[in-house]
Amino acid sequence: MKIPNDLKYDDKGLIPAVVQDWKTNEILMVAYMNAESVKKTVDSGFTWYWSRSRQKFWKKGETSGHVQQVKEILYDCDQDTLLIKVEQTGPACHTGSRSCFYRSFSG
Amino acid sequence: MKIPNDLKYDDKGLIPAVVQDWKTNEILMVAYMNAESVKKTVDSGFTWYWSRSRQKFWKKGETSGHVQQVKEILYDCDQDTLLIKVEQTGPACHTGSRSCFYRSFSG
Repeated sequence: MKIPNDLKYDDKGLIPAVVQDWKTNEILMVAYMNAESVKKTVDSGFTWYWSRSRQKFWKKGETSGHVQQVKEILYDCDQDTLLIKVEQTGPACHTGSRSCFYRSFSG
Repeated sequence: MKIPNDLKYDDKGLIPAVVQDWKTNEILMVAYMNAESVKKTVDSGFTWYWSRSRQKFWKKGETSGHVQQVKEILYDCDQDTLLIKVEQTGPACHTGSRSCFYRSFSG
């Protein structure tokens, strides 16, 4: 994979990554990457994010084993959002839910 | 639909919205909403965003006719991202592509 040289990072140096199950198209989570975590993701074949709360890199599943193997990375017309298609091992959400999007505007 | 009262907006008052085709699960685009555009979306049944570049509300498809009828709105475990399932009329992308994510990290 080749990282496009025109990706646009925000004023904090971050780009949002939408993470999608490569087979079912289910949206699993949204997290943030900086340029270095994009590179670590492409180089390793597994997702690496930047934690905004902890201000550090994290490899998804490093402790839980719930890793994401990268199948494809797309980017949008504005070059400011990534869409990462992955093979998800186990649940994507720290709550144990398959997807972080398990609640809806109901009522 | 009922807007959850614990949604978290960023320091600019915005929350990202991932927009997905409700039937195929294809990701169409990512845009941003503030609290008022979330309310306009829920009240009207069509997506209303906040333009960060133009600093104004925009109803998706207002000029192009490529509107998005809202079918379901989900939110994630952190309450800081929305996932909006829509019926998309015409292409979602201003380039004429069905999805804004039409390019990949290739090579």
